[in-house]
Amino acid sequence: MKYALVTAALAVATALSVQADEGQWQPYQLAELQTELSKAGIEIPGKQLADLSQYPMNAIVSLGYCSASFVSGQGLVVTNHHCGYNAIQNNSTKDNNLIEKGFLAKTLKEELPAGPQERLYITEQVLDVTEQVTASLAGLTGAERYEAIEMARKNLIKACEADPNYRCSVVSFHHGLQYFQIKQLMLQDVRLVYAPSESVGNFGGDIDNFEYPRHTGDYTFLRGYVGKDGKPAPYAEDNVPYQPTSFLKVNASGVREGDGILLAGYPGQTSRYRLADEIAFAADWQYPAMVKTYQQMINSIDRLGAADGELKVKYASVVKSHNNRMKKLQGLLDGFKVTDIHAIKLEREQQLNQWIKADPSRASYQQALLELAKVVDAEQTFTQQTYYFENAKRSDLLNAASTLYRLAQEQQKPDAEREMGYQDRDLPMIKARLARLEKSYAEAMDIELWSEQLAEYAAQPEAVRVAELDAALGLTAGMTQAQIKVLLQKLYAQSKLASTEGRLAWLGQKAEAFEQSDDAFIRLAVAIAGKNKALELQDKELKGQIAVVRPAYMQAIIAYNKEQGKPVYPDANSTLRITYGTVDGYPAKDGVYKTPFTSVKGMIAKRQAEYPFNLPQKLVDAYNQGKTDGYFYADLAASTESPWYCGIFTCPQAKKTAFNSVPVNFLSSADTTGGNSGSAVMNARGELVGLNFDSTYESITKDWYFNPEITRAIHVDIRFMLWMMQDVDGADNLLSEMTIVR
Amino acid sequence: MKYALVTAALAVATALSVQADEGQWQPYQLAELQTELSKAGIEIPGKQLADLSQYPMNAIVSLGYCSASFVSGQGLVVTNHHCGYNAIQNNSTKDNNLIEKGFLAKTLKEELPAGPQERLYITEQVLDVTEQVTASLAGLTGAERYEAIEMARKNLIKACEADPNYRCSVVSFHHGLQYFQIKQLMLQDVRLVYAPSESVGNFGGDIDNFEYPRHTGDYTFLRGYVGKDGKPAPYAEDNVPYQPTSFLKVNASGVREGDGILLAGYPGQTSRYRLADEIAFAADWQYPAMVKTYQQMINSIDRLGAADGELKVKYASVVKSHNNRMKKLQGLLDGFKVTDIHAIKLEREQQLNQWIKADPSRASYQQALLELAKVVDAEQTFTQQTYYFENAKRSDLLNAASTLYRLAQEQQKPDAEREMGYQDRDLPMIKARLARLEKSYAEAMDIELWSEQLAEYAAQPEAVRVAELDAALGLTAGMTQAQIKVLLQKLYAQSKLASTEGRLAWLGQKAEAFEQSDDAFIRLAVAIAGKNKALELQDKELKGQIAVVRPAYMQAIIAYNKEQGKPVYPDANSTLRITYGTVDGYPAKDGVYKTPFTSVKGMIAKRQAEYPFNLPQKLVDAYNQGKTDGYFYADLAASTESPWYCGIFTCPQAKKTAFNSVPVNFLSSADTTGGNSGSAVMNARGELVGLNFDSTYESITKDWYFNPEITRAIHVDIRFMLWMMQDVDGADNLLSEMTIVR
Repeated sequence: MKYALVTAALAVATALSVQADEGQWQPYQLAELQTELSKAGIEIPGKQLADLSQYPMNAIVSLGYCSASFVSGQGLVVTNHHCGYNAIQNNSTKDNNLIEKGFLAKTLKEELPAGPQERLYITEQVLDVTEQVTASLAGLTGAERYEAIEMARKNLIKACEADPNYRCSVVSFHHGLQYFQIKQLMLQDVRLVYAPSESVGNFGGDIDNFEYPRHTGDYTFLRGYVGKDGKPAPYAEDNVPYQPTSFLKVNASGVREGDGILLAGYPGQTSRYRLADEIAFAADWQYPAMVKTYQQMINSIDRLGAADGELKVKYASVVKSHNNRMKKLQGLLDGFKVTDIHAIKLEREQQLNQWIKADPSRASYQQALLELAKVVDAEQTFTQQTYYFENAKRSDLLNAASTLYRLAQEQQKPDAEREMGYQDRDLPMIKARLARLEKSYAEAMDIELWSEQLAEYAAQPEAVRVAELDAALGLTAGMTQAQIKVLLQKLYAQSKLASTEGRLAWLGQKAEAFEQSDDAFIRLAVAIAGKNKALELQDKELKGQIAVVRPAYMQAIIAYNKEQGKPVYPDANSTLRITYGTVDGYPAKDGVYKTPFTSVKGMIAKRQAEYPFNLPQKLVDAYNQGKTDGYFYADLAASTESPWYCGIFTCPQAKKTAFNSVPVNFLSSADTTGGNSGSAVMNARGELVGLNFDSTYESITKDWYFNPEITRAIHVDIRFMLWMMQDVDGADNLLSEMTIVR
Repeated sequence: MKYALVTAALAVATALSVQADEGQWQPYQLAELQTELSKAGIEIPGKQLADLSQYPMNAIVSLGYCSASFVSGQGLVVTNHHCGYNAIQNNSTKDNNLIEKGFLAKTLKEELPAGPQERLYITEQVLDVTEQVTASLAGLTGAERYEAIEMARKNLIKACEADPNYRCSVVSFHHGLQYFQIKQLMLQDVRLVYAPSESVGNFGGDIDNFEYPRHTGDYTFLRGYVGKDGKPAPYAEDNVPYQPTSFLKVNASGVREGDGILLAGYPGQTSRYRLADEIAFAADWQYPAMVKTYQQMINSIDRLGAADGELKVKYASVVKSHNNRMKKLQGLLDGFKVTDIHAIKLEREQQLNQWIKADPSRASYQQALLELAKVVDAEQTFTQQTYYFENAKRSDLLNAASTLYRLAQEQQKPDAEREMGYQDRDLPMIKARLARLEKSYAEAMDIELWSEQLAEYAAQPEAVRVAELDAALGLTAGMTQAQIKVLLQKLYAQSKLASTEGRLAWLGQKAEAFEQSDDAFIRLAVAIAGKNKALELQDKELKGQIAVVRPAYMQAIIAYNKEQGKPVYPDANSTLRITYGTVDGYPAKDGVYKTPFTSVKGMIAKRQAEYPFNLPQKLVDAYNQGKTDGYFYADLAASTESPWYCGIFTCPQAKKTAFNSVPVNFLSSADTTGGNSGSAVMNARGELVGLNFDSTYESITKDWYFNPEITRAIHVDIRFMLWMMQDVDGADNLLSEMTIVR
């Protein structure tokens, strides 16, 4: 009898021993991954996951910049608080600050328009259009090839967007090896349904960004609306909720340590297949150069801001975004120190090389590798060559002038032939950007930041400097920032671009008008436009060359892996992907293990009087009153830690897993990146158990290399969301609307 | 067959499931703790541990301020680097800085005298002298009682010290319930044998003080020498190594997570049996008041030091010790926030009360409790009453003056009747202290610190102020620090105590000479001496009263526990104690678990260019060359995690325990406090596996309450010491001298 139990348990234990694997898979690839999915404990068949018209993938949506999912038949959508931030901000006033207070619509009528730019995109079709895009590229130069691909993409998109309810894109996979046309239904009426107070939704703020332990209730509910005919329509009061084909069930029991999870969303960009040499360049030259530049800008903004409160407010969001970039850059450099990714990549390249050399029929791969190395080298030289010139143009007014002049130039061509970004469809965005400049611009700061970068530029050897810029500004080698400031001051006095009116007046003007203008910034833009164009052409030439050699390199990688029975996932490119993983902690450093769940208890312990560590009184009250309903957990240890024999033997580690609270955030080994914010985290049956919203500091290098030991994504636990809705914010209407299982 | 295995393993697993327990036990108590010891996996019988003449207790020694142990038959002693610091400093010169370089004697001849004050104490006899001390105290007032006890102690000590090779003390246990006479053999010739470089022995320095993860190689070797006749003797070149009755075997395999350990040493002071009310007073009044005072002093020293490098150097050790106190105070206050010790103590008091009320024969305990509460209340009032006056005397010169005058007064009495601390045996220490003052005194700083505290004092209500001090200084209510400084400046101008000569000139002078002096500080000391004496008497009266009621309260606690079959250990009092525990990590905060071992790998990762995070090049080289001999561990997970069934089932957590390095420090749940520095950490068979040297920040509150979940002591791992000796410092001679087992 005992023996039979032992055998049965053996099978279970083996199944649970599998570790999460890397991979941001295209949905169709899941069909090939059935063995891995089963090992990870995922119950939904791979074939079902591969089918975008079936549960759960037909419930996954995009906000364009974030991921989300349907959670009711009435178009209710859940995403991150930071993804719904625009919708909350658009409805906030000084006297009714929804960011601070939070918001809950108790009826459909109370739901608020998210804003004219907010959209919901539902991917309905993914079509391989490689043939159409790459059919006739033979014999072209790099730049010609680049332009031909762009033209093919523009034509495909135009045809696909014939139905105005859809937005289409043609996206390169494996860096040009394949092209897929993505067709997405686009809902234009999005409304704000429920957002917790910012003190919950952004608890920890910038301080906790990329950090764990984390206690952020980063969730918000939106709803998609359509016209009465069921078709997408702009906001109208009498629009009705969109009825999705399907929506995610919510599992109120959540997950435990060791459970397998699925995560679906729209990851933005990764560099997993770069050469070791490219990592070395980033680690040794590019990132340190960027750290220096960002630190200079942050220091200058802080210094001037400290002396002038108005400047501080104007540049608050700029410095915030610089700080975020700095933290990411620092995390990359720190991560490179901890894990020698360069060595790992080098070893993999050597393995690939040995495989290629082992068979003469693989000689073409050898050639591809050699050529890729050559083009990468040229690309790096180009980056180093142009880095200081690009920074030497960091004036908001010069930027505006250059955009306006380029637009005028492009508008001389038929719309279809214009550079992407300067077509008629882009005009509203350009106008909005030019108008918005006002909010975060001050002459004193623009001069300070620009002159600092110009001084860096002026200190570079002549080969790196640009004669047109030097001549136009009167710059000479080795000029100090103080000397440069004197030159610049005159420019600002002789320009009207500092006013929104002054900038917008140039929209629709002919190129000749620019060339004859005496506005100092317009003149400067015109003076360097030729050089900019030349560099752009050089860039396109390189991109066109890379679009030949990188696909060839990817083919080698794919062939090598295929021989070992391993599919290859493409680098992230903002298209729909699925990743699976395990709920798991990680060894953060010598002597420190980060456990996979955080709790309301820990959130309360972190509480301070001031944002970002304050908490709504009603949350504190609910905690103090012991309101936890079904969301209190005494223990969230891995189910692997409590197999049947723990009843007979004393099971190890049990005392370490006392939890005794409502879970707030949890970690998993799912493979994510920027753009995965708001992604549905699902259990083995595809039921919603959390939302992805961040990664740990130690994971920042994952865009280059997924280290399974330490790479962890951070999720909001569904139990925290449900506890908030039930015991803190009283969102019973939404709890009733969703399908909640246990 | 399987079933038999299951049953066998069941017994093992149960044995391993036991948690470490609190308790700083008197050795004789170990005989009563056999069941607990066996549960903790300790193999040496409790009776053997209770016998100070048997292994391993006959190998445990004291340095007076630290613990240590013999590790060879030739008097070789191992203790902490910070305990051997005096010995290293005494042998360091500018040109031969052993602190920085480290030191290794390859032969006996090369060993260096540790210094004339260094001693080794070997506890040979512990005698219950309660009867002798407390026999005739009936009917005395508090102060009389206090004096009678002191007199009895002095007489016992004198008789015991008739043999000059011994040092004796008579120590109160359970706060006066029992008295034991401790007789210790005193070796006077101690030599420095081996100390690693400070960058290893104090790696992390003050920054890592009380912190974990920790990577400090806090060990040093000394040797005890005796005359050729085998008897203790002062340093002489031809002295010979002392041959201890026994010495600890060294186990080079060390310990794993979950292993039971023994720890023996001389813990200084704990307050485990205080009333809840006493915790509340410390948490709400006393510690916050002290935090304020220390922070004021630290800020002032930092401010003046920043402007004057010489001041900074003079007060460096003062500010270091203030910072250490501040960290401890802050740790106490933080700890009180995390664990509601007051509530825990209150609940225990209520349980005790219920037990007392349950039986009329326990009425005397009830009375004791009521009286203790009353005296404690009076004591707290006294503390609050005198706190500001005590701080108002914080001038080094006033201190010197008061000591000198008190000494003159005491010297009017026969030696035996003098206050302890002012007897003839104390003269060398007093003189040394008066001379040393020079090194850390500067008038500007003394005025700054003193005036700041005087201003605090002057702001107190009249009831708290002292008329004699006010009159002598010309202080009036609410005077500002600036006003007070003007008053003080005159004092310094009218005193010769700032020079060592000026101070020492007063030694041996009659009290009348003080009373007729016109030295401003001597006059001030004389002016407040009466008040000081009166307060001292009040203090003795309180102490005498407490010496009645606290023992009565302890009797109640002991009786209550005895009924439940539990022995009670006395609060620490710098006498020899044994504690046992488990090698174990702890949950440091929500989402963070600290694992029990740190590694050389982690030490290298923490390395920086500057002290305290620099490392000797030879250590880095040994690491880079992969020299690890038998000290490399792939895995140090609990042996409970790998029972036989892990071969059949996949054992959980295995991936979390990859270690792959030489262990440096480890944690255990042993119950320690200040004074336990250098204590031998022994495995189940009493073999040396490490040295105790610190506690975690979360453990600081353990002096009040031992929380088994989070209280952890930090130890140097024997494997790190052996690795250093073998692969880094080349101490083969010592490796050969010790008995190393595996």
